[in-house]
Amino acid sequence: MKNVIPSVKGTRDFYPEQMAFRTWLYNTMRQAAESFGFQEWEAPILESIELYAAKSGEELVKKQSYVFEDRGGDEITLRPELTPSLARVVAQKQNELTFPVRWWSFGPFWRYENPQRGRTREFFQWNVDMLGVDTPEADAELVAVLATFLKQVGLNPEQVLILVNDRRLMDRQFEKFGIPAGQRLEVSNWIDRREKMKPQEWEAYGRDFGLSGDQLANLKAMLADKQLWQESQELTRFFAAIEALGLSSFVRFDPGIVRGLLYYTGTVFEAWDMGGVVKRSILGGGRYDNLLADVGGEPLPAVGFAMGDVVIELVLKDYGLLPKDLNVNPAPVLVTVFDPAQQAASLKIAARLREAGLNVICYPQAVKLGKQFKYAHRIGARVTVVIGPDEAENGQAALKEMVSGGQQLVDQQDAAEAIRLILAKPGAS
Amino acid sequence: MKNVIPSVKGTRDFYPEQMAFRTWLYNTMRQAAESFGFQEWEAPILESIELYAAKSGEELVKKQSYVFEDRGGDEITLRPELTPSLARVVAQKQNELTFPVRWWSFGPFWRYENPQRGRTREFFQWNVDMLGVDTPEADAELVAVLATFLKQVGLNPEQVLILVNDRRLMDRQFEKFGIPAGQRLEVSNWIDRREKMKPQEWEAYGRDFGLSGDQLANLKAMLADKQLWQESQELTRFFAAIEALGLSSFVRFDPGIVRGLLYYTGTVFEAWDMGGVVKRSILGGGRYDNLLADVGGEPLPAVGFAMGDVVIELVLKDYGLLPKDLNVNPAPVLVTVFDPAQQAASLKIAARLREAGLNVICYPQAVKLGKQFKYAHRIGARVTVVIGPDEAENGQAALKEMVSGGQQLVDQQDAAEAIRLILAKPGAS
Repeated sequence: MKNVIPSVKGTRDFYPEQMAFRTWLYNTMRQAAESFGFQEWEAPILESIELYAAKSGEELVKKQSYVFEDRGGDEITLRPELTPSLARVVAQKQNELTFPVRWWSFGPFWRYENPQRGRTREFFQWNVDMLGVDTPEADAELVAVLATFLKQVGLNPEQVLILVNDRRLMDRQFEKFGIPAGQRLEVSNWIDRREKMKPQEWEAYGRDFGLSGDQLANLKAMLADKQLWQESQELTRFFAAIEALGLSSFVRFDPGIVRGLLYYTGTVFEAWDMGGVVKRSILGGGRYDNLLADVGGEPLPAVGFAMGDVVIELVLKDYGLLPKDLNVNPAPVLVTVFDPAQQAASLKIAARLREAGLNVICYPQAVKLGKQFKYAHRIGARVTVVIGPDEAENGQAALKEMVSGGQQLVDQQDAAEAIRLILAKPGAS
Repeated sequence: MKNVIPSVKGTRDFYPEQMAFRTWLYNTMRQAAESFGFQEWEAPILESIELYAAKSGEELVKKQSYVFEDRGGDEITLRPELTPSLARVVAQKQNELTFPVRWWSFGPFWRYENPQRGRTREFFQWNVDMLGVDTPEADAELVAVLATFLKQVGLNPEQVLILVNDRRLMDRQFEKFGIPAGQRLEVSNWIDRREKMKPQEWEAYGRDFGLSGDQLANLKAMLADKQLWQESQELTRFFAAIEALGLSSFVRFDPGIVRGLLYYTGTVFEAWDMGGVVKRSILGGGRYDNLLADVGGEPLPAVGFAMGDVVIELVLKDYGLLPKDLNVNPAPVLVTVFDPAQQAASLKIAARLREAGLNVICYPQAVKLGKQFKYAHRIGARVTVVIGPDEAENGQAALKEMVSGGQQLVDQQDAAEAIRLILAKPGAS
């Protein structure tokens, strides 16, 4: 095995077991999004670098994106995030679409980072967005889709909590503290680093870029003020909507939540792993009312979030919530081939069972029956079918239940029904 | 709209309508593959160029692939096809997997070609492969998966036919005609171009690279010999298996089928649009018994095929077979917001209906009811729910059937059941 050509660093191979998990995740996301009426869509995977240049975080485009020239000399980007594509695609048909638009998507993205636990270079992301309405109730709906997903996968608020803030509220506080507009991005980044530094270092860093002692004290008091949201009309309506939706236990105000991406303009939120090993933000989102105009469309309010597949898998694993009984082997029935003379009879019964709606493997070679039964065991087949010379002559088939070992002889025309009865029993597969 | 940042040439935006088609295609492929017990898997999208260098067609890697250096200086390829990744992934776990392995996949691929009808640079491809067995019955199973898909989407053998040949049979013929091993690739390419050139030009081209008059005559006779398969033990067993599977009408021998990719070693097949506008091969596959060893694994026989999404959509459109009634809008229920005072009541009933398993949109803003009803019409909602002050006070909800205009007042606790009854009626959505 040692000479097999290696895969690219930071990518993953999805063997059927891993693929079954990804499909389960995708289906669960679909269920949560569609229960709120969101429509699935998808952007191209290649986009021009121009699309990201305006509004993604600087690090994301300049340091972490896969950018290359194609054979025609155009600069192409492997998309590092979906939101700019969303803005472009909506802007293209802004006069035709029915607003508010509710869209969701699940697909691959790339960032050139150092692979580590919970982080790969090639990853999948769930994106959910609503465009065309600027109400706190719309923001609450996005958070509700997310909370619905978290509940569906079995997480509780002691494990994962959605923390919410509002950039407009923060800006008013910054104004009050005499922090000029030009310094607010720096202050936001400083707030964002609070959990990653020692308190003294963090304060020194704040002083270094120009915060006064008063400003420092005010900002620290603000970060401790869990009731500050009551000064915000938007957040007051937001939390009323969350309560009406029955999701208050999953959602909490946190004045320490700021978001790195430049395009957020209002509500911002992150889901945090509160009790497990990840102990950090596992996804984020918020309101971005300027992005449509930035890509060339008419101004249009928007709110959305994105969640990566790698970190949520890690969190679920950590809490023992990975799904059991994933459908890794779709065929519960194996038709054996008794000998070369019975090849056609086996193919025929397999085709007949498929016609009746069963998923059926017909062993593709007339090897010893023992080997075929061993294969049936290993793939977890629940029923095997044998047609030997006697069965063929009498139009019959021998069915064997793999778990109990029970056998029965049935007319070939009754085989599908008999197999259905076996499969309807509580399985041990 | 004219200033919107453009998309990359040869890519597609999947608006919900296009995405619903893609999802339908994906589900139909899943159904066909799983009915034969194939498991879904997926490879990374980025692979090293080394993986393709050995065995893909020269044009595919050198002229048509997206190749670039990443930030670490590694040469990366956007995968132009799946089979080399499959060989790598299987070779990596060759001692752990249960053979025969039956795997299928549906994902994005890239080729730097001139975009045209039925061809984009970024496209999706369905791949189905069986590894670990070298029988004609395995080859027949792959063709049967494909034929099952064609039948499921409504195509008949007058429209699309699967044409089959065998490279081993061809090699024996070439041997007989005195064509040396070193010239056979050229002869195969020449055969492949037959339909694309005028007969005289095609013959002249054959003479130019060294075919004698006898060889030309023999090759032309061979290409006209529809019974030649009877000289092949493999094809004789293959067609017997196809007949046992009840699929003979979809499958025909054609000595003109050769395949460009170097790695095919036995049975080869293509599906051809016989009656429509495409009038060319719409997909291909075959046996490739040397690829595992070429990527560094132990030798392992394999057979598979790949089909692109763009050309099959074109064929279906051409024959009027695009699916109707795609599920573009998942929510049949719209809860309106009567006024700001009733906001919470509307959110509550929406949450309650979702709890009961319904997909529900709650309008995210207390605009005029008329505007909300108009929205309900445009998205094709079948039921709208109104909670005004009276309904709220009495714990009731007003339901309106959008098609008939019929209205009813129900207790909020009975609303889900009442809506289910309405949705169970034959819809006009």
